[in-house]
Amino acid sequence: MSESAVLLIDCPDQKGLVASVSGTLYRFGANITHADQHQDHDEGLFFMRVEWLLEGFDLEGFRAAFREEAKRFRMRWRLHRSADRPRVALFVSQHLHCLADLLHRNQMGELKCSVPLVVSNHRDGESLARFYGVEFRYMPVDPENRAAAEAEQLALLEEAKIDLVVLARYMQILSPEFVARYPLGIINVHHSFLPAFVGARPYHAAFRRGVKLIGATSHYVTEALDDGPIIEQDVARISHRDQVPDLIARGRDLERVVLSRAVAWHLDRRILCYGNKTVIFD
Amino acid sequence: MSESAVLLIDCPDQKGLVASVSGTLYRFGANITHADQHQDHDEGLFFMRVEWLLEGFDLEGFRAAFREEAKRFRMRWRLHRSADRPRVALFVSQHLHCLADLLHRNQMGELKCSVPLVVSNHRDGESLARFYGVEFRYMPVDPENRAAAEAEQLALLEEAKIDLVVLARYMQILSPEFVARYPLGIINVHHSFLPAFVGARPYHAAFRRGVKLIGATSHYVTEALDDGPIIEQDVARISHRDQVPDLIARGRDLERVVLSRAVAWHLDRRILCYGNKTVIFD
Amino acid sequence: MSESAVLLIDCPDQKGLVASVSGTLYRFGANITHADQHQDHDEGLFFMRVEWLLEGFDLEGFRAAFREEAKRFRMRWRLHRSADRPRVALFVSQHLHCLADLLHRNQMGELKCSVPLVVSNHRDGESLARFYGVEFRYMPVDPENRAAAEAEQLALLEEAKIDLVVLARYMQILSPEFVARYPLGIINVHHSFLPAFVGARPYHAAFRRGVKLIGATSHYVTEALDDGPIIEQDVARISHRDQVPDLIARGRDLERVVLSRAVAWHLDRRILCYGNKTVIFD
Amino acid sequence: MSESAVLLIDCPDQKGLVASVSGTLYRFGANITHADQHQDHDEGLFFMRVEWLLEGFDLEGFRAAFREEAKRFRMRWRLHRSADRPRVALFVSQHLHCLADLLHRNQMGELKCSVPLVVSNHRDGESLARFYGVEFRYMPVDPENRAAAEAEQLALLEEAKIDLVVLARYMQILSPEFVARYPLGIINVHHSFLPAFVGARPYHAAFRRGVKLIGATSHYVTEALDDGPIIEQDVARISHRDQVPDLIARGRDLERVVLSRAVAWHLDRRILCYGNKTVIFD
Repeated sequence: MSESAVLLIDCPDQKGLVASVSGTLYRFGANITHADQHQDHDEGLFFMRVEWLLEGFDLEGFRAAFREEAKRFRMRWRLHRSADRPRVALFVSQHLHCLADLLHRNQMGELKCSVPLVVSNHRDGESLARFYGVEFRYMPVDPENRAAAEAEQLALLEEAKIDLVVLARYMQILSPEFVARYPLGIINVHHSFLPAFVGARPYHAAFRRGVKLIGATSHYVTEALDDGPIIEQDVARISHRDQVPDLIARGRDLERVVLSRAVAWHLDRRILCYGNKTVIFD
Repeated sequence: MSESAVLLIDCPDQKGLVASVSGTLYRFGANITHADQHQDHDEGLFFMRVEWLLEGFDLEGFRAAFREEAKRFRMRWRLHRSADRPRVALFVSQHLHCLADLLHRNQMGELKCSVPLVVSNHRDGESLARFYGVEFRYMPVDPENRAAAEAEQLALLEEAKIDLVVLARYMQILSPEFVARYPLGIINVHHSFLPAFVGARPYHAAFRRGVKLIGATSHYVTEALDDGPIIEQDVARISHRDQVPDLIARGRDLERVVLSRAVAWHLDRRILCYGNKTVIFD
Repeated sequence: MSESAVLLIDCPDQKGLVASVSGTLYRFGANITHADQHQDHDEGLFFMRVEWLLEGFDLEGFRAAFREEAKRFRMRWRLHRSADRPRVALFVSQHLHCLADLLHRNQMGELKCSVPLVVSNHRDGESLARFYGVEFRYMPVDPENRAAAEAEQLALLEEAKIDLVVLARYMQILSPEFVARYPLGIINVHHSFLPAFVGARPYHAAFRRGVKLIGATSHYVTEALDDGPIIEQDVARISHRDQVPDLIARGRDLERVVLSRAVAWHLDRRILCYGNKTVIFD
Repeated sequence: MSESAVLLIDCPDQKGLVASVSGTLYRFGANITHADQHQDHDEGLFFMRVEWLLEGFDLEGFRAAFREEAKRFRMRWRLHRSADRPRVALFVSQHLHCLADLLHRNQMGELKCSVPLVVSNHRDGESLARFYGVEFRYMPVDPENRAAAEAEQLALLEEAKIDLVVLARYMQILSPEFVARYPLGIINVHHSFLPAFVGARPYHAAFRRGVKLIGATSHYVTEALDDGPIIEQDVARISHRDQVPDLIARGRDLERVVLSRAVAWHLDRRILCYGNKTVIFD
């Protein structure tokens, strides 16, 4: 595929926004391949994503011209080049199904990123990471050493120039300080249909409540536990026959799918957050 | 269809249960059409449902013989004849989609019951009830008169020999005293994926939380609000484009399906409750 | 809701399309409430739907100005006012679940249309139609009289100024001549997941094949049986326990949902057809 | 988990079957952990699966006693020990997502089998197989050498004492002679919702037809292409925005889930075939 640019915009809704953006792109001769927009009428907000081919396109000229337009409409905007692939670190525990899934997808070219680093508080994922050519760092975490461990992790992330942290069933709660270093830069998968069953052991809680569907949720991590903007959710039907181990097994398939979609969409710059919600552009 | 009998059993799990039940049925020459069982290994419980044809079957002889077996295994059991159709009262508000759906299904023969009564605190459902030949009782309820209104409702239910009360989007909370009169005899539909969004205005709460799926739940009513044994749940995918009215519209389709399944299964004697859970026999 | 206009466009893809449309709308001061577009890269086609408020908008001025733009880009386009509600005729057999569903939805305001006419080759739907205040015409059809019956039906449709014919489980095949009179103006629901199980008795065929999911499909009617552009599909899980009558019962819930969505989207001018496919705008 | 036995039965339906089976098990003191049965009323057939703990159980005594009962009722039956883990060979092409998924699941203990062998007509899967400690055999197949290649494959399977062949996106059609050697012993995943889109390039065909859902199907391989007994199916929603590569990507997630379920159920001895259908016991 040839290289492309993605422009993401959010701002107060007003007349002339699309005319302005599309007019500027037209003046620079952009060959648009995707465009999607969204209006939140209650909040009076406008969101837009445009993607176009970069071949023969004067990106820096456009950037300068668009900066003026953006000022006029008080837009917040980001301009990405598809060639700038985010660098992703995967954090895991001894539960390896999401790790195996993401590494395989990345190798197959499904994810537009590079994965230089796997961090874990267990050694179980080491051989898998190495098989896919990814550095594996074993960093045990316990209540006493959490602050020190997080400091070490942050140093490692900085050194590896990580853009996105994916908690692929990491099972540890990150401190607010850690989270604050990666605003909308940490994606977690929670093994329930949020906001039901926040916190630990959600499959056990689901079993006790006698629900007929179990779920999984991928979301950006914020300070509040399991409360960040939801990116994707899915559910699977269960019955009275399913015991907790059955729920856990069914859930693994949900977690894989829900997390990998969130990561892929993030990498495709298809997500905009506002308030505690996400816009997922087509 | 020819008449049949349904035997429902629950008891502590132990060896020989199926041999005893199937042996007794065989001695009486039962022509079994459906049989299903379930074991809860954690709780050490056994559940069974058997259905057989009544033509030429000595039901009273079987009942006497089985009573002895049941005593031996400390079974709780119920024996139903398909000819004994439960009498159902539908409670509604001004939201009529579940009422219209249940009345149409009943007329088409999908539900094994008779529906002699619709009770509502609004007049909107009156013509619909009358069209389907069902008596409609308008009984306004407000905080001051709730006790008196419930007393009147209970008298009405008793007079009409009602076996099952279906809250088809009734939107009123019943008192513990009312609920206690119909143990496992009141089915409600809640317009969320329980236990998420308990209480009033769940679609508004779902919208604020930014979930990617909305749900509906049918359950038996117990004293605790929205906390009774869940019978059925389903979900529908939504996106950032859907506003609250869209959620409400999508939700109506879920509510119809989830409630009508619960009612049909209850009438088919396919549900056993234990603890706060349901076994739904095939 | 206040009145709005909907503009639907399809044309060869080229640079400047969005800039042209949005620029013209901006010049006329349009307050845009929804906009969605689609590009088919393989076919080199562009599709767009824009909706804006009509209050204080010079629609005729815009129409004249846009006509010039459209010519320049060789657009095919349609401009609708939300106040112009299509007139819908429902064709049914003795299977009434879709009829009951559509009439109830229409009464509740879910469908932006008027329904002046129900046509059936059975008398079963008569009381239901009359309850909802709709004229019912009983028109028996058999192989010998089909041509005469269709002529009579077409006269009736013309007299009632019908814009859309909905085959709500009509179970009769329309002649190519009839279909040609309502291009993309007849919506059918087929009780299978097309293209599987084309033709008669699809639930029986699904049962014989031993599928694990059954489906329903709503589509525009074209000359080729069950081969028109698909609007919506959905499926439900079944198991080896489900016999043909179970499939039929489960299928009714699918048919209702799949047909009512198609009708609602058509009435919202959210569907564009090209080749044998549909674009469903958000 | 402690060791268990599984008894699978199918025979003409008649009175006393359950009484006989459960009575015999009771006489031998079986501690039953799961039991499920099914009747096909149209065909007059009965199916049963019982699982019980082997600790302290006289399996050979039971086998002898049950043989007599089975003769009396003309039962076809199979008795498995959970300790006898089937040996599975995976056949793959250059599409490795199902291979990666099955090997990971097997390593995690989700599949009750051993996997001694991967066979492929491409070299792509070699490192993955070796990482999981499985022998990889590269065996190119082309129209001229197919008979010879199959003979070599069959010799390899025999040597490795393979019980089950899983075509994990193998993309080659097996000859009737090959298939005849493993009756109900070859599981394939087809990347469509069968019986729609039989044969090659089903995602391209689905795209052309404009369907709104895509599917995947796992089934036993029989002589007729894509026509064997269906084990599991699932679907995913697509839209007009999805091009063929999107369908292929979405489909991979379906294929993984649908194939892994089929393999797990087969290994749990939960599947009985009759005619061209499967009974999947709970």
